[in-house]
Amino acid sequence: MSEGYRLMWKNLGLDLNAHDVLLDVLGKAYTDIYLSQKNRPEGMGYFDFVMSEVHGLRIQELLDEKAAGRKIVGSYCVFVPEEIVLSANATLVGLCSGAEFATEEVEKILPRNTCALIKSSFGFKLGKVCPYLECADMIVGENTCDGKKKSYEILNELVKRLYVMDLPQMKSPAGKELLKSEYYRFKSEMEHLTGATIDKERLKNSIDIVNNKRKAIHRLASLRKADPTPISGLDALLANQVFFYDNPARFTESVNKLCDELENRVESKTGVFPASAPRILISGCPMAVPNWKLPWIIETSGAVVVGEESCVGERGTRNLVDSTGNTVDELINAIVEHYFEIDCAIFTPNPDRIEHIVEMVKSYKADGVIHYGLQFCQPYTIESGKVEKELQNRKIPALRVETDYSQTDVGQLKTRVEAFIEMLK
Amino acid sequence: MSEGYRLMWKNLGLDLNAHDVLLDVLGKAYTDIYLSQKNRPEGMGYFDFVMSEVHGLRIQELLDEKAAGRKIVGSYCVFVPEEIVLSANATLVGLCSGAEFATEEVEKILPRNTCALIKSSFGFKLGKVCPYLECADMIVGENTCDGKKKSYEILNELVKRLYVMDLPQMKSPAGKELLKSEYYRFKSEMEHLTGATIDKERLKNSIDIVNNKRKAIHRLASLRKADPTPISGLDALLANQVFFYDNPARFTESVNKLCDELENRVESKTGVFPASAPRILISGCPMAVPNWKLPWIIETSGAVVVGEESCVGERGTRNLVDSTGNTVDELINAIVEHYFEIDCAIFTPNPDRIEHIVEMVKSYKADGVIHYGLQFCQPYTIESGKVEKELQNRKIPALRVETDYSQTDVGQLKTRVEAFIEMLK
Repeated sequence: MSEGYRLMWKNLGLDLNAHDVLLDVLGKAYTDIYLSQKNRPEGMGYFDFVMSEVHGLRIQELLDEKAAGRKIVGSYCVFVPEEIVLSANATLVGLCSGAEFATEEVEKILPRNTCALIKSSFGFKLGKVCPYLECADMIVGENTCDGKKKSYEILNELVKRLYVMDLPQMKSPAGKELLKSEYYRFKSEMEHLTGATIDKERLKNSIDIVNNKRKAIHRLASLRKADPTPISGLDALLANQVFFYDNPARFTESVNKLCDELENRVESKTGVFPASAPRILISGCPMAVPNWKLPWIIETSGAVVVGEESCVGERGTRNLVDSTGNTVDELINAIVEHYFEIDCAIFTPNPDRIEHIVEMVKSYKADGVIHYGLQFCQPYTIESGKVEKELQNRKIPALRVETDYSQTDVGQLKTRVEAFIEMLK
Repeated sequence: MSEGYRLMWKNLGLDLNAHDVLLDVLGKAYTDIYLSQKNRPEGMGYFDFVMSEVHGLRIQELLDEKAAGRKIVGSYCVFVPEEIVLSANATLVGLCSGAEFATEEVEKILPRNTCALIKSSFGFKLGKVCPYLECADMIVGENTCDGKKKSYEILNELVKRLYVMDLPQMKSPAGKELLKSEYYRFKSEMEHLTGATIDKERLKNSIDIVNNKRKAIHRLASLRKADPTPISGLDALLANQVFFYDNPARFTESVNKLCDELENRVESKTGVFPASAPRILISGCPMAVPNWKLPWIIETSGAVVVGEESCVGERGTRNLVDSTGNTVDELINAIVEHYFEIDCAIFTPNPDRIEHIVEMVKSYKADGVIHYGLQFCQPYTIESGKVEKELQNRKIPALRVETDYSQTDVGQLKTRVEAFIEMLK
């Protein structure tokens, strides 16, 4: 990394030594897991570059935006509407939460029985190694699960400006009303942060920008229905991860370019795995960079991941926001309708998710489902029982995995995953 | 137990052998923990009788009520408004969730990392040993924590009629609106269940009945401010536990009778512990019958428990419902206002609870606070950090305990509690 970046990180208040260690680990993992893959699409070159500059050029871009008067908003969840952030002339970025860091420090302020994702987000803050978090003008938390809801009260003492968005727990009329009032409150907060007024034109434009991003990533997803699939699950997951922090227009263009190439591959039946490789759908908790553990285990065990029923996957991207409204109210309503459809396990009951999993199994021609639950994530681990039962009823093979971000269970997991894949052959 | 009870339990579908085992364990625990106490108030005789008949006479009474056309409603939480249940001509009872039972069976359908209270409620169902659950015409669940919210989806497949009440997560205007709409929905559901119409008179009358129960238990609590305290923490906890399943009028009368006796004790400075015994406030998760582990450890270690900042304690009982309203709407509003004040850790933020703990420390002249968290209960275990910090800031000694319903950690807990108490002397 150049000396310029080091100065940038220092000015952001990062712990340079700890950050060096992180980048070193991240770089090695990327080389081992990503660059070692065979027959990758050329279009992945863009994402390799993005990853190599994930704490470098992208941060420089965000700082340039800040210098030009734009605000940066950080979030941890798909329920934070990028449409509203963009239309207030601000940029939304996902925050680091995919790796273990400063765990000992974290466990002094959070119970050990907290999921790895939450612990990670605190670790990046306490360890001073997340440039996204440090350059954000505002962090948006949300009352999804108990773990996040209650730990935001503690994060509030560690960051400059934390805004917490309330969320409903049931898809009732009262639940929708609550979401609507919260999105209006968020709109006001964004206008207050940036000084911009969110009008119809800005909102329409932002909805289009985000819809285009969703269309592109959905196009990529659809190409994985082909047999053999033209791209590895790891590479597709990476695109879904980059979705959360890249420049939206550039991301859309790069994904579409990758898709052009993949279409040619599909036509020529060029795959990254033999056509005989069992096809796996991953369902469950989100996987933030660099949490590549499970797909890496699967794809080094003779199977290919063809889809992610996940927040970092189809959960937030499969539907578009209707941009035909003629007033701010109509457009906000369309945004509410969109996000209220997300089938996160925080909702009770949550039958849409199970239907969606079954539908994905069919459309992606998956041979089996691996349910990925983060240890101590109560919404997904409890729901996984229902998911498994429903899949069994439909004779769809399913394996439930509960893990965290450590590497200690990799051997054990690999044994279980290999046995499952063997069964599918 | 008489043969009549055995027939009653059989008709309720209980597993008689398993139930015998449970009653045996419960009886032994009660003898060891309660009856071994010295210098107990005579008024506790009523509660000893209630406990000896907890699965006998009380169930017979409920079945008699059912035979007379009254409905029985079971619940697991203080947010289910007894006022609305009573005014629909139904009886509300708390359901069994205080002991380990059928844990192996439970862990087949719920993650092991689920709190003991939820596992227990499932264990009583799967083991067929809770006559309250089996005689209830309707079970009311509530979206408090993630664990309960998501496990009710599974309980729904195990019980006849489960109704789930949504709850807000923030004390915002939108949150209050949600609670209000849910209480109206619950009112309709109760009217539908019983065929009764909830009118102003019934509602006023029910509010008074529940307020009187609260006043009595609050009178009992206040008497514990005396030094020496006239009643053990274990006995006071028992009264708070019986609050949830006894006949309201009889309960109120019995508690008031006990209080008359305690007033005399206070006057004559008669205590159950030496005046020098350190005074402990317990704060945190609820303790359902027969979960007497922590207060038993404390009171056999030379200290006395003087208050419970808990759902089975002051959390739901310290405030009354205003019964002066002149319309059903005004009275429902008063009920909403009351329950919206409850400072459960499911709310974010939840500053009232910390204030209440500090206020209780002062008014009960507590020398220290023991925070009781159930393992895997994210709302309370995460909030416990904030509570401890706030108490430290005010130089109030505090000990955080995280446990479950097993007896395996009793020795270790006793060592920690003894050391804490020693420090207070």
